[in-house]
This record gives sequence, structure tokens and C-alpha cells, in this order.
Amino acid sequence: MELIYKKLIRDELEELESILNESVSSEIDLATEVSKHLVSSGGKRIRPAICILVAKCLNYKGKDLTKLAGSIELLHTATLIHDDVVDQSLMRRGKASIQVKWDNAHGVLVGDFVYSKAFQLMASFDNPEIIRTLANATNRISEGEVLQLSLKNKGELSKEEYFEIIDRKTAELFKVSALTAGILCNCKKDELSGLSNFSASLGIAFQIQDDILDYYGDENLTGKKVGKDFEEGKFTLPVIMALKCAHTENRKKLLALLENPDESSFQEILAILNEERTFEKIQDVFDFYYKECMKELSKLPQNSYKTALEDIVSNLATRLT
Amino acid sequence: MELIYKKLIRDELEELESILNESVSSEIDLATEVSKHLVSSGGKRIRPAICILVAKCLNYKGKDLTKLAGSIELLHTATLIHDDVVDQSLMRRGKASIQVKWDNAHGVLVGDFVYSKAFQLMASFDNPEIIRTLANATNRISEGEVLQLSLKNKGELSKEEYFEIIDRKTAELFKVSALTAGILCNCKKDELSGLSNFSASLGIAFQIQDDILDYYGDENLTGKKVGKDFEEGKFTLPVIMALKCAHTENRKKLLALLENPDESSFQEILAILNEERTFEKIQDVFDFYYKECMKELSKLPQNSYKTALEDIVSNLATRLT
Repeated sequence: MELIYKKLIRDELEELESILNESVSSEIDLATEVSKHLVSSGGKRIRPAICILVAKCLNYKGKDLTKLAGSIELLHTATLIHDDVVDQSLMRRGKASIQVKWDNAHGVLVGDFVYSKAFQLMASFDNPEIIRTLANATNRISEGEVLQLSLKNKGELSKEEYFEIIDRKTAELFKVSALTAGILCNCKKDELSGLSNFSASLGIAFQIQDDILDYYGDENLTGKKVGKDFEEGKFTLPVIMALKCAHTENRKKLLALLENPDESSFQEILAILNEERTFEKIQDVFDFYYKECMKELSKLPQNSYKTALEDIVSNLATRLT
Repeated sequence: MELIYKKLIRDELEELESILNESVSSEIDLATEVSKHLVSSGGKRIRPAICILVAKCLNYKGKDLTKLAGSIELLHTATLIHDDVVDQSLMRRGKASIQVKWDNAHGVLVGDFVYSKAFQLMASFDNPEIIRTLANATNRISEGEVLQLSLKNKGELSKEEYFEIIDRKTAELFKVSALTAGILCNCKKDELSGLSNFSASLGIAFQIQDDILDYYGDENLTGKKVGKDFEEGKFTLPVIMALKCAHTENRKKLLALLENPDESSFQEILAILNEERTFEKIQDVFDFYYKECMKELSKLPQNSYKTALEDIVSNLATRLT
């Protein structure tokens, strides 16, 4: 079922697409061609949608909103492009990734180009607090990437390390999506802190859901193959929670399976996860962030934009059951 | 002989080093370690020096100068890190490059980290014009990188294409070094345009000198091996000028040599360049930019900072004779 926000802010989302397309249109044809490959390939636009919904919920009437939302989506896109180079990913949004269709050099340099367009949009704001907030977020995201890299060959990841990474890599950009919307609306300090907590929690819930669906998802519903994280030997929340709680024998088995992961052993790992009641444990973690989101949203004015935000949160929870 | 500026603004250059080191000091140890490998490896700091000298020549007394100079040097450093990934360069500033000492992923992600630190420094200014100027420069530089990439497999490069690339890749950051210093000093529009012309011309002269030294340099003086550009099959100004003017026979020979370049044929290419009087022709191009620099500098107040700027320009010319 289509989420409420897609209809509610259809005009703003259309304007967003124009801004994104205009932004990556360059005198240098190759820069336009390669960046449009990803920018125009859809994507959920969930971060800009949050930014727009929060500002409209707070009755924003100015003209800067879709520009702000656009700079956030461009930042996100630039990180995806460089992520794909670093992970040597084959696909992105159902298409060949940039470094597959072109090569690493195109990924690195066009990623930089998209970053620079995000910064140009940011720099167009007269509000220095918005620029600083976005620049700080860019820094925390890139530190998250380097942290993940530094832990890559370490083997087992602790729950704390996992949360430190997703707090920077995923939650940070969600956080500033609502936070900068609040700054645009001249919110007070405690309101800004509530908005930050809402969207950072949403970002974490979003990532947890992603991790869960990779083990327990229904391919017919999600369109994504299950077991991909496992096959790549990634330490995501299901495995981390299972390792944290499992008895010695199951820990050994899990670590051995993760060291040489292949498609055929996915059912084995699922069996251990079930034995350890991992799904239920993650559900508890998810519920915490779900409730944080709903608690913070309850403080916002009652209107259709708030309902659309609640719908986004509820939808995340529904997909888990 | 040491350039005048190094003594004249020694305090500011020391403060710059502190700012650079502080900037790349991160909670994430790996980000600090990898970025310091390049940030702390010296480099001429010519761009920040120009920024500082211009502002001090214009009697700037505020506190933002070394921070501005630092953001420019960090931008420059980030582009070097990604350049080395794209070119798979082995060395940088006499040390192993990041992707040799670590790997591509470290180059991409730590490059992004250094970019983000540059943006954080930029964003700390209250003057939106400075932020916008630097963001626009970042975009033009990255477009220059993509343009160069798009022309890579084209073979022969025209003089116009060469200048379009160096105007973006090299001259742009030189340009904003003096331009933002002028904005900081509240210069008028025509003064800013003079400063831009000075430092953009200096950037081009700087690049031309680099290209010439690669063919005609004295290894004992420059510490750099001659013939590197040729061996990598690069179309730099000496070759471009020779191809533009040479008769059919020499053009054929040149293109053949550039298609399969090796160390042993460097003397052959030099012989053709001498026959075509390429050095003299490039000297004329260089002289044009040299004179632009000196003309613009003559408009600045007469003081020791102006003398130091003239010294930088003269020094470039001296190394050519």
C-alpha cells in the first residue's frame, strides 16, 4: 500500500525531482550523464520527505524547503556512489552501479561532483546554522564510513560498535532531515532536540528493519533477496544479537558459518537464530526506537503532515510482523 | 633560495599547521592516522600562503584568516587524495600514496573525511559570500576532474581543452585563495576581480611551469625526475604546443611516441620539441600570465606582503630560465 506522504506532498516531491535534476545538470556532459544514472533512478526520497513533512507540519511557508530537502538527498546520493566504489557493489536501485557501468574513477569523481552540488545548495542558505548543521553531519557520516572500514577486518562486531556505525552512517542524515526543517521553522532548542530524537530514532529503526528483512524478509513483498548480508559475511544486528546471547556451542557454529558464508548454509544460520530467539530480541530493540519516534511525534501539532509521519513509522513496524 | 613569504608570515604558517592538524584530529583514530599521513607531510602551502599574504597586504586585522587559509589547504588535500586513487599514483610528497600504504577504500573514504573537514571550516564563517565562493570553487574543481576523465581516452588534447582543464583543476583554487582574502577585507567589486585575475593567472603560470619542468627541468634543482608526464602518455602543454605547430612528419612521430611512451624515447621527443621551438612558444604563453600577475599586483598597496607575492611570481619565472 502506498504511504500517505507520497500523495500529501506530491507537489513538493515533484519540485524536489526538478531541483535534483537541475543540480546535477553540468556544463560537463559526463558529470550530468553519470550522476543522473543514480539521481534519476528513483529511490524512496525518505530523507527529503521527512524534512518536508516536518517543516509543513510546523506550518513553514517559506521558499527554502525543497532546496534544503534537495541538498540532503544529494548528500545521501554522494555517499551511496562512494559506498558502491568502496564495497565494489554490482547493483544500486535495480541498475548497474556506477563503477560497474563505468569504472572506479567515475565513481570517485562523480561522487565528488554530487557532493559539491550538495554543498552549493547548502551554501545558498542565508542561515549559517543550517549550513553548519549539514557540514557537521557530512563530517559525522564520513567518520562513520572510516570507522566501519577500521573495524572491517576485526571479525566480530560488538553491539556498541554496530550502533556507533549506524548512528553515524544512517541515523545522522535522518536526524538532520528533521533538525534542519526545525531550524528553518525557528523552533526552540527543546523542540529541535525532540525533532532530532524523532528522526535519529527513525533512522536507527529504518536500519534495524533493513537488517531484519535481510534475514526474515519476504522476497515477494520486499523485492530483495534474503541472506545477502550473511553471504557477504556482514555483522549486522541479527548476528550480533545472536552472538551476544548464544551459548558457547552456538557461538562457535555462528562464527564458523560467518567465516565461510555461502548460500547453502543460510538455513543453518537461521536455525541458530531461531533457537536463540534472536528475532524477538531485535524486535524489542526496534520497539524502543519505534516508541521514541511516536513519543516525539505526539508533541507535534495535529495535522495531516503529522499523520503522514506517523504512517512512515507505523509502516516500518508493520513490515516486521 | 628560500622564498620571502616563508619568513614573513612564519607565525601565520605555523598557526595554519596547527589548524590543519587539529582539523583532521578525529574521534575515529583511523581517520586521523590516514589523513595526517598527507596533511602533515609538508607541501608548499602555496594556496594558503597567497590567501594570507593578500589579506595582510590589504591590512586585514581579524581572526578568520588562518581558518580560511586552512579550509583552502584542506580542500586541496582532499582533491590530491582522490586524484591519487583515480590515477593509482604510487607516491605523493615523497611518501607512499594513501592507496598504496592502505588501499583504494581508505583513499576514497579518508578523502571524503578531509573534504568534510574543509566544509566544516568553511561553514564556520559568518560571511555567506565566502562560503558560496568556496562551494562554487569545489564544484568547478570537481567538474574539471570529470572533464579530464571524459577526455582521457580521446587521445590528442587541444590547447583549449588543456586550458579548460587547468583553469578548473588548478587555477580555480588559486583564484579563490586571493578572492576570499579580498572578500574578508571587504574589497570592492573591481578590486575582487583584480585579485581573482592575479591568482588565477598565478595558478595557470604555476601549472605551465610544472609542465615545462617535466620536460626541461634540472633534476638536481627540482628533485623531480624529468620525463614522467611523457612516460605516462600525458598530453601536457609542451606536447600540445608541439602538435599544434609541427609539420605533418613531426606530428606523426610525436603521436606515435606518445602512444607507446617509454623512458628510452624521451630524448627523441625532446629533439622534436627543440626542432619545433616548443620551449620558446610556451615561454611566450607563460610570459602572458606572468605579466597578468605583475600587472594586478602593481595595483596593491606597497608593503612587504606585496613584495613577497611578487617574489613568488618572479621565482616561478626564474625557474624557467
